[in-house]
Amino acid sequence: MISVENALQLVLKATQDFGVEKIPFIKSVGRILKEEIVADRDFPPFNRVAMDGIAIDYYEFSSRLRSNRQLSFKIEGIQAAGSEQITLKNNQNCIEVMTGAVLPNNANTVIRYEDVIIENGVATINIDKINEDQNVHHKGKDGKVGDVLIAENMKISAAEVGVLATVGKSFVKVAKQPKIMIISTGDELVGVDEIPLEHQIRRSNVFTLVSLLERLNISSETAHITDDKPILKSKIKNYLQDYDVLLFSGAVSKGKFDFLPEVFDELGVEKLFHKVAQRPGKPFWFGQTENCKLFAFPGNPISTFVNCLAYFYPWYYKSVNLKVEQETAILAENVTFKPDLVYFLQVKLSCKNGNLIATPIQGNGSGDLASLVHADAFIQLPSHKSEFKSGEVYPIIRFK
Amino acid sequence: MISVENALQLVLKATQDFGVEKIPFIKSVGRILKEEIVADRDFPPFNRVAMDGIAIDYYEFSSRLRSNRQLSFKIEGIQAAGSEQITLKNNQNCIEVMTGAVLPNNANTVIRYEDVIIENGVATINIDKINEDQNVHHKGKDGKVGDVLIAENMKISAAEVGVLATVGKSFVKVAKQPKIMIISTGDELVGVDEIPLEHQIRRSNVFTLVSLLERLNISSETAHITDDKPILKSKIKNYLQDYDVLLFSGAVSKGKFDFLPEVFDELGVEKLFHKVAQRPGKPFWFGQTENCKLFAFPGNPISTFVNCLAYFYPWYYKSVNLKVEQETAILAENVTFKPDLVYFLQVKLSCKNGNLIATPIQGNGSGDLASLVHADAFIQLPSHKSEFKSGEVYPIIRFK
Repeated sequence: MISVENALQLVLKATQDFGVEKIPFIKSVGRILKEEIVADRDFPPFNRVAMDGIAIDYYEFSSRLRSNRQLSFKIEGIQAAGSEQITLKNNQNCIEVMTGAVLPNNANTVIRYEDVIIENGVATINIDKINEDQNVHHKGKDGKVGDVLIAENMKISAAEVGVLATVGKSFVKVAKQPKIMIISTGDELVGVDEIPLEHQIRRSNVFTLVSLLERLNISSETAHITDDKPILKSKIKNYLQDYDVLLFSGAVSKGKFDFLPEVFDELGVEKLFHKVAQRPGKPFWFGQTENCKLFAFPGNPISTFVNCLAYFYPWYYKSVNLKVEQETAILAENVTFKPDLVYFLQVKLSCKNGNLIATPIQGNGSGDLASLVHADAFIQLPSHKSEFKSGEVYPIIRFK
Repeated sequence: MISVENALQLVLKATQDFGVEKIPFIKSVGRILKEEIVADRDFPPFNRVAMDGIAIDYYEFSSRLRSNRQLSFKIEGIQAAGSEQITLKNNQNCIEVMTGAVLPNNANTVIRYEDVIIENGVATINIDKINEDQNVHHKGKDGKVGDVLIAENMKISAAEVGVLATVGKSFVKVAKQPKIMIISTGDELVGVDEIPLEHQIRRSNVFTLVSLLERLNISSETAHITDDKPILKSKIKNYLQDYDVLLFSGAVSKGKFDFLPEVFDELGVEKLFHKVAQRPGKPFWFGQTENCKLFAFPGNPISTFVNCLAYFYPWYYKSVNLKVEQETAILAENVTFKPDLVYFLQVKLSCKNGNLIATPIQGNGSGDLASLVHADAFIQLPSHKSEFKSGEVYPIIRFK
């Protein structure tokens, strides 16, 4: 049995680069960017009008102000958004300008309509505190052509999609996702559509795993194999050829029909570890072949769930080179946990005065999937300690 | 101009129930549940073995312990997971049992293999501290048939998917999503695939909106209309018939070509408000017809972005009856903001010692979409106040 820290280290040593693919930018949310996004032009690309109003020459304005002359400017024309730049021909005049338009040539300052009265083609400014360049968003202010707007390895969200559109990246390079098969074992399991007999239950772990992978934008396939060693062996042999990752649920503990560790061994899979000093999820088995990683999770619903979050997620993040900040939360109640194991305890998170509070959810052990409905994270309580006090801070792993 | 609070109240008064649809449970992640999920049988459905080992009669064990007799039990048989319940015929004996199996009849306690030595068909227990019922997950302990396992109006995540599978809900009732059209205006806009002329820029707001709706599992359509009043009017007239919600970006401010408010009026749309005391996003226009809600956001990228989060999101949550907790964070730096407006400031969140810290991201105003790449939330700083101190706590809206 190894520690959670060592297990995680071994998992993170077995990460793998799955390469890069180009996809339409509008389908890229949640994917990991695999190129630098640079500005194809200045940002904004021209001196951009930032308010609807009139554009004037500031020097003319301030000279009239100093000499107490009238602040009225004849309107020479209109500069609409999307029109070519026009020129203020006479600096005694002004041009009506619209938000998003190019600032007219020879003008440098925009007065918004709210501060102007327009009558008979003449705009009279009714304020006297004006700054040169006001309401002008200058060419290149947010970025220069060639500037890196999005660094490589960022996770793409709505904000990045906007930038991709702006620079014309209709296709974008992202990390390819691993090809994953999720396999359940256990002869007590029947399909979701079936009516189980007294001693049977329906399959559920493969579907929670499918959903947990979907959170990472990974699509996956599922299969069920009966607890029959030759059948397990021949099917897994094929899956090892066809997939980058196999996730198993069940058949890794001490039971008479827990054939997986033997089968892996006979198929030449390198075992990296079996059993981790944690609860739930202790009998976790992890290994690899040259082209495939095998995460074999214990079959109890919460064991499978927490191990996917605690090991597969960080393995995926490192494989695609995504940095993820470790979150922490404040324990809301005293917790006693005697065994010398890391304890992954389901908690409900709430946010009070900028504090993240973790309230333990009472569950009935690793079989109690229904209790996860009321939780939204696991808090990770360390080993070598059995009393955890309200107010202490520990790492959390969110799943909602 | 109305306050942010009043604007939000008016938006929340205009929510709408879009009905219910049945979808495959495995496609239901992120959707809002519209039925109670009840246990179709006890949870677990039988006295379930929770450890691989042997099952015995506890009273026989304790009577031997008291009288100092040998703790050896002849193995009568094996109870595998997925097999019908067998019976311990002689309480002097034991049955090997596997995790997930039914506890054999006449047995009540499971000793794990780690605490047993098996030789020649006899299991000898090598510990003397055993509790009655240990390692047995009792029928109905996590829930009774008919118990509500998931309440209506919960957002479905991986945990709920597992429960849906367990109770055989292969199809599940969820809130129907509104049918949404996203419309951009502005003659300065060209397509993402095009090379803009000097005075043009590429469309980006519609794509950020598409992505922000995807976060709510809402798919949407997009269209662009030129700044031509008759064309705007005829197209919007059709959209009002065909969609539940129209989201607009641009053409709601004071510009000469900001035709939307007039067009809405001429089409008989009821205006609920125009202009909110906030920055960015002040010229926001909101209205409705009998069957359609219109969110007309100002065209600056950050204005569109923040208004979608601050108004459309809560409107959606209330429409589908989802309760969402208001998050707060601690300001990491002093901020000065003079105008008497609510200030939505982009921030980077980090988690230190269970505290959620919001560090302001320097942006160049509402046009600076690129600055959102470095942020992951907006912090909402109230009006009637201009100095916001490091350490103060304010509401946040996350978008990553």
